[in-house]
Amino acid sequence: MFFHSNKLAEPVELRDPVHGYVHIEEKVILDIINTKEFQRLRRIKQLGPTSYVFPGAHHTRFEHNLGVYELTRRICNIFAQRYPSQKAGDGLWNPEEQLVAECAALLHDIGHGPYSHTFEHLFGTNHEKIGCQIITDSNSELNQVLREVDPNFPEAVASVIAKTYPNPQVVKLISSQADADRMDYLRRDAYFTGVTYGSFDLERLLRVIRPYADGICFTNNGMHAVEDYIVSRYQMYQQVYFHRINRSLEVVLNQLLKRAKFVYQQGTLPVTPNLAAFLAGKWNLDDYLEIDDGVMETNFSMWRNSGDEILADLATRYLFRKPFASAKIDKETKNLLSKLKVYIKEAGFDPNYYTAVTSAFDEPYDAYKPSGKNAHSQIEIMQDDGSLIELSQLSPLVKALNGTTQGDERFFFPKVMLKNSDELQIFDPLYQAFQKYVKNGSIRYLRSPKKNK
Amino acid sequence: MFFHSNKLAEPVELRDPVHGYVHIEEKVILDIINTKEFQRLRRIKQLGPTSYVFPGAHHTRFEHNLGVYELTRRICNIFAQRYPSQKAGDGLWNPEEQLVAECAALLHDIGHGPYSHTFEHLFGTNHEKIGCQIITDSNSELNQVLREVDPNFPEAVASVIAKTYPNPQVVKLISSQADADRMDYLRRDAYFTGVTYGSFDLERLLRVIRPYADGICFTNNGMHAVEDYIVSRYQMYQQVYFHRINRSLEVVLNQLLKRAKFVYQQGTLPVTPNLAAFLAGKWNLDDYLEIDDGVMETNFSMWRNSGDEILADLATRYLFRKPFASAKIDKETKNLLSKLKVYIKEAGFDPNYYTAVTSAFDEPYDAYKPSGKNAHSQIEIMQDDGSLIELSQLSPLVKALNGTTQGDERFFFPKVMLKNSDELQIFDPLYQAFQKYVKNGSIRYLRSPKKNK
Amino acid sequence: MFFHSNKLAEPVELRDPVHGYVHIEEKVILDIINTKEFQRLRRIKQLGPTSYVFPGAHHTRFEHNLGVYELTRRICNIFAQRYPSQKAGDGLWNPEEQLVAECAALLHDIGHGPYSHTFEHLFGTNHEKIGCQIITDSNSELNQVLREVDPNFPEAVASVIAKTYPNPQVVKLISSQADADRMDYLRRDAYFTGVTYGSFDLERLLRVIRPYADGICFTNNGMHAVEDYIVSRYQMYQQVYFHRINRSLEVVLNQLLKRAKFVYQQGTLPVTPNLAAFLAGKWNLDDYLEIDDGVMETNFSMWRNSGDEILADLATRYLFRKPFASAKIDKETKNLLSKLKVYIKEAGFDPNYYTAVTSAFDEPYDAYKPSGKNAHSQIEIMQDDGSLIELSQLSPLVKALNGTTQGDERFFFPKVMLKNSDELQIFDPLYQAFQKYVKNGSIRYLRSPKKNK
Amino acid sequence: MFFHSNKLAEPVELRDPVHGYVHIEEKVILDIINTKEFQRLRRIKQLGPTSYVFPGAHHTRFEHNLGVYELTRRICNIFAQRYPSQKAGDGLWNPEEQLVAECAALLHDIGHGPYSHTFEHLFGTNHEKIGCQIITDSNSELNQVLREVDPNFPEAVASVIAKTYPNPQVVKLISSQADADRMDYLRRDAYFTGVTYGSFDLERLLRVIRPYADGICFTNNGMHAVEDYIVSRYQMYQQVYFHRINRSLEVVLNQLLKRAKFVYQQGTLPVTPNLAAFLAGKWNLDDYLEIDDGVMETNFSMWRNSGDEILADLATRYLFRKPFASAKIDKETKNLLSKLKVYIKEAGFDPNYYTAVTSAFDEPYDAYKPSGKNAHSQIEIMQDDGSLIELSQLSPLVKALNGTTQGDERFFFPKVMLKNSDELQIFDPLYQAFQKYVKNGSIRYLRSPKKNK
Repeated sequence: MFFHSNKLAEPVELRDPVHGYVHIEEKVILDIINTKEFQRLRRIKQLGPTSYVFPGAHHTRFEHNLGVYELTRRICNIFAQRYPSQKAGDGLWNPEEQLVAECAALLHDIGHGPYSHTFEHLFGTNHEKIGCQIITDSNSELNQVLREVDPNFPEAVASVIAKTYPNPQVVKLISSQADADRMDYLRRDAYFTGVTYGSFDLERLLRVIRPYADGICFTNNGMHAVEDYIVSRYQMYQQVYFHRINRSLEVVLNQLLKRAKFVYQQGTLPVTPNLAAFLAGKWNLDDYLEIDDGVMETNFSMWRNSGDEILADLATRYLFRKPFASAKIDKETKNLLSKLKVYIKEAGFDPNYYTAVTSAFDEPYDAYKPSGKNAHSQIEIMQDDGSLIELSQLSPLVKALNGTTQGDERFFFPKVMLKNSDELQIFDPLYQAFQKYVKNGSIRYLRSPKKNK
Repeated sequence: MFFHSNKLAEPVELRDPVHGYVHIEEKVILDIINTKEFQRLRRIKQLGPTSYVFPGAHHTRFEHNLGVYELTRRICNIFAQRYPSQKAGDGLWNPEEQLVAECAALLHDIGHGPYSHTFEHLFGTNHEKIGCQIITDSNSELNQVLREVDPNFPEAVASVIAKTYPNPQVVKLISSQADADRMDYLRRDAYFTGVTYGSFDLERLLRVIRPYADGICFTNNGMHAVEDYIVSRYQMYQQVYFHRINRSLEVVLNQLLKRAKFVYQQGTLPVTPNLAAFLAGKWNLDDYLEIDDGVMETNFSMWRNSGDEILADLATRYLFRKPFASAKIDKETKNLLSKLKVYIKEAGFDPNYYTAVTSAFDEPYDAYKPSGKNAHSQIEIMQDDGSLIELSQLSPLVKALNGTTQGDERFFFPKVMLKNSDELQIFDPLYQAFQKYVKNGSIRYLRSPKKNK
Repeated sequence: MFFHSNKLAEPVELRDPVHGYVHIEEKVILDIINTKEFQRLRRIKQLGPTSYVFPGAHHTRFEHNLGVYELTRRICNIFAQRYPSQKAGDGLWNPEEQLVAECAALLHDIGHGPYSHTFEHLFGTNHEKIGCQIITDSNSELNQVLREVDPNFPEAVASVIAKTYPNPQVVKLISSQADADRMDYLRRDAYFTGVTYGSFDLERLLRVIRPYADGICFTNNGMHAVEDYIVSRYQMYQQVYFHRINRSLEVVLNQLLKRAKFVYQQGTLPVTPNLAAFLAGKWNLDDYLEIDDGVMETNFSMWRNSGDEILADLATRYLFRKPFASAKIDKETKNLLSKLKVYIKEAGFDPNYYTAVTSAFDEPYDAYKPSGKNAHSQIEIMQDDGSLIELSQLSPLVKALNGTTQGDERFFFPKVMLKNSDELQIFDPLYQAFQKYVKNGSIRYLRSPKKNK
Repeated sequence: MFFHSNKLAEPVELRDPVHGYVHIEEKVILDIINTKEFQRLRRIKQLGPTSYVFPGAHHTRFEHNLGVYELTRRICNIFAQRYPSQKAGDGLWNPEEQLVAECAALLHDIGHGPYSHTFEHLFGTNHEKIGCQIITDSNSELNQVLREVDPNFPEAVASVIAKTYPNPQVVKLISSQADADRMDYLRRDAYFTGVTYGSFDLERLLRVIRPYADGICFTNNGMHAVEDYIVSRYQMYQQVYFHRINRSLEVVLNQLLKRAKFVYQQGTLPVTPNLAAFLAGKWNLDDYLEIDDGVMETNFSMWRNSGDEILADLATRYLFRKPFASAKIDKETKNLLSKLKVYIKEAGFDPNYYTAVTSAFDEPYDAYKPSGKNAHSQIEIMQDDGSLIELSQLSPLVKALNGTTQGDERFFFPKVMLKNSDELQIFDPLYQAFQKYVKNGSIRYLRSPKKNK
């Protein structure tokens, strides 16, 4: 089932600091960008609270989606030129797939709202499902624009995002361990945070990517470029996504929204109607499309003046960047937390809102697991004779990262717990007692002094 | 009057994509950054609606202020090493000025609110005055932090921003035709918009800048670096700040707020309390400190559902990027606008809200004008023998730009006026009539056919 | 007359720091690169002695020629996609011209030898003529490779370089005020010298370039990119090509070769046979193809041990970077030089070899001069309605540079003339007498002491 | 034993594309650069034949030495500011060491000649010993310049390079697994080849490096920057230094020089006197200082016309980039080479000059081996409490590379052996027979046909 291209009379070019320019040649691409569902992505930061740690990181889902589209477009053009399918089933690329691939790339994150991870966790939303809903709901501007291509086009695009589209090459371009999505966000997040870690050789990667029967792979003269990309990805997780202050502010955000739900149920919370719908558990798509980072922060700002002290304090902490402190824990030291929470409570903080434990574990690369949920997502390197070899068998670096989980588990708590008496300007032995359990950024067991033999 | 340095035990380094790292060594600098008045700058975009045209341009006044601080810190360090004053009045640099210079640099834009230009125009605010107020008001967190240095420190810092501080070197570092402020924003705006025009040789500029009795100047071996900076500045104005779509969205914003004032006075506008204070004309500093880009957009979003059709339409245009069209006008063709507004009105648009005229004229560089408001702000190049020559006398490029005003005057109107009958799906001769007056992006006179002699 | 494309089975990609990759798809391009005439360009620096001033500038004519080819290829691809000719004479681009354009771009500098400017001046060679000779001489490897395309192909390629090829679009792509040659060398020289001045927006320039009946022009939405390129060009001349130390070492080189000619005629010079042919004035193409930077420097090194003192000294100065000093002169102060040369002679230096006067004047941009040698080379900007406007009428910056000549005239002499008695460790009043004439880097008239009131 | 600083009246700044500027403040540094022994490094490429593969890689040992000096200077400045020693033995940095450290950094490669690796192998030279000789020989300009600081200064500088200097911090700065030398060459080689692999975060590395009692280490908040540097180093080896064409041209060079020695002994070789000294085995320091890349290539060019066919052919191959083909071998397939050489000999090539086997194995990182020659060179990460942990215990990536050797062993032979009959334009079964042993870039055993079931 293929769809008709409808070119713009004049191609449009958008300036993009990461890829130079985003080139738009299809009318439907420009129309999608101009819908209100897509424009709202300008108000949703790609990395949520990360700009609190890396001040440049204000980039939004809008630019990221454009970037994924642009990479997909470039790859499809290379595929069409170098690997055009001659007959069905030859494992090469059918250029007629380009339109659906480009639209799916552009829309792969259309369902995201503000602070997706935290929001979904607390309010039971799901950005992938909502994304498909926005695409297929006949009331959306987006749906109307897609239907101009073909009545079946919205469903086709949605099925790529849902990974049920029949052509695995199209699906893997948008979603696999080395897809246009990851390529864009690694580079983009590196650019806007200012770290150097995302600087894999994108141009080379685009040169060595190629289609095969079950998806996309890379030619063997590009193995090191792919390896470099995997290492970049690992480094971005370690240095940016899992940064402890970043995680701390996510904890503050989570506790803030949790408290807001509680206070709302007491019936006293000032709140904008669209967000109220979520706190009440009765939201619809229109509500969802109306909330963005600014709406959330406007509510947080109002809550600073709500009567609830905990809510006001947490809102202040989030808006003015007062992260919790944290310390590493492990299986053993986790048992100490109940004791530590007692100190925290004694210091005047409700542990339910002022402490948390989070893990940050990433699988930097994951080879074939036939029965796993990521089955077949491994990266394949095509040899001269057309055979495929899985990446970790060729790269010692990737092998080192394969299937491992990198990261740590941390305990978060108010920073004041670590202050000394001078700074506190009071003397209270409970802070000293607490502080004995924290050394070199980790919770530790106190060894009782050897009393005697 | 000098102030005591109080160094942090551990210097703090913030990652900045433009300058690599921002280095913080003074306790007061870190304390300033942590105040709520400063943190709010994270929610105020540096370039307002420009991200609608250059999608990467989401950077905020927070990073810009950090950047100006960092450049000032670097320059002061170079001054202290190379040009330390030996005795009062020798025209060299007194290292004891560094603390006040750094704080003034960090705070030079502290008074900015959302969409400063438009907001100030409509609500009579003034970001420079408000900035000094925030610094000197004893209720602000900022003031408390500054007073920890010295009771007179807030006033000293404010006087640098107000340009009344006695040492002209400090004042000129923060505010002159080649100051740390401009150096940072040109580079930063270029980085985040992705244009190449802001790429003057900053490192060289920092090498050739030096103090003299009346301010700061540049050594003659750096003339070309300064020239390059002036050209960059000119190009950024032409390509980014005066971009016609950028200006168009500022027009939409202005009309939107103007209509909101009107509707508010009718008593029916849903609005957050802090913004209401401005619409009512009775705001205080707390109101000002509570509004930011997100608050504004949250209100716009509510106004889409207000009963007022014009307000709802303008809010939709702003939030979802539906700029007005525009055409150049000149002295002569300006006379046609009343006629054109008639067509626009016939097409159903209130010209009071759906048309506007704006000028965008910049003086890229301006040499000495003894009686002008920018007196003494010219850029001086120091010769081998210590004499000063004004830049435009040395550079033909700068001479070409000196005192000229670059830019144009445009008429803005609804884009639909330019659509043809096919697109409009109606036939209405008024559109054709209107369109005859627009050619090659300019309004033109219609020549009546030669009737007879 | 069109020539047949013959694609490589596998495209070849060469890594290039300036353009990312150079893509080779045509067999003849790869074959040209592999000829010995082309490979020798690896041993001829693009900027001669400039690496003595900017230590990174070791790049050679080899990479530059590849770069010009790559830009031409990209432009032709864009032309073929956007502006394909529909019928002869429509002013658009005939894709069949691409092969000859690419080859001419790759070979436009094939006739260059070491230190071209100086060498040509002293030995009467001409790199353009020699280039055409290499291309058309049936003994060259290059000619054989070109003839494989078509017996008439070498002449066609040579005629593009000689600007006699019938299609002006092809000629102007390779040689005009905004051609692929200049675009490459500005960027490349900036990259390898490390200056920022060559950073015009190449990607945008490639987007806005387009063919028209008489050559190539730029669309009006790219005016500022073209302006930026002209300014970059001006800055590179001022900062790099005309750098006074660069010019000084060219003077040393010139005097060294001049002396070598003289000594050779005395019959005593050790010299490699290929260079001897030039000193004797009886060289052929094979001699020319055998000399390169290394051969020249090997000879210079031998000359350090030749019996001739002046030659040995000049060779040492060139090889170990001992530039002459210099001072600006003007029409008036030029009259002082004969007097200054007397001092120099008294200090023991033969003015014929130890002094020189050179001018460095560039026309950064030159609009239409109907009768001049650069007639029709002006840059045209195409308006919406297809009309052309010459660049300097649109850009105040370009207007400022139009037709002006930027640069200066300098007098070169041994640096020791500027040393003071302490450094010289002798007392000799002639140095003091000389030094009185040099102030702030310029030669000046001595004002006679006031004789009477 | 410390040496007196003698600052220049005016600091000198050299433009460097990699580090921005090289800053020279000490007179002795400028004097060293101006010696003829140092200036000659401008004529010796850093990467020998690598520019045949990465056309931009013409950078020389001159710039690299400047770069190592610059990094050392920056590190010493940071050490002096952050970690100044308070009393002997406190493990911190003594700022009086800066002068000797800077000079040693600048001179660490002063002993290099053209094509060091190959040259040393064939002529028994040793660049480290020669370097110390140049520094300490009272006839060298360099020695005279160093003695102006102090009569003992040359020996002190030489002892840093020889790793016998008493202060291990100074020695490790110049030579260890994470020294200024490696930091510079990784970045510089990446810049000039145009690959992205060398892009570790140098600025951060300079922030987290610090002295300790036994050398230099890194603070724990910089672990990931160090990890990134190790990975960059591994990638540069894989992608650039061990590139198979690079190695092939080194083989050609080696065989060429080997043949030249042979022909020279027959007494018939045209050769410049300085190189003749090496072929004769009777060279002195002056001979060594006179040879450079240009001298070598000038000789190669002469040898093309020598009577010896093999020498002429190998010289042509080297000068005009005609690399040998190659195929991977392993322990098993190595046994096939004698058989393959028979085919090669039958095809008319002397296997002694037209085949070779080389290994390229690098230890990307090597932790503590108490008894190994690299003992104590491991990279240490300093924890909050001052304890040191070896890098591979903290980084899974480094652990994966620790102590492994990456690379391969290849067999080199004339490319013509892989041509097919059509290309050869002759039919000769020996080529087919040879080609059966090469598959997918490796030598393989031929499986004998199944004899029976």
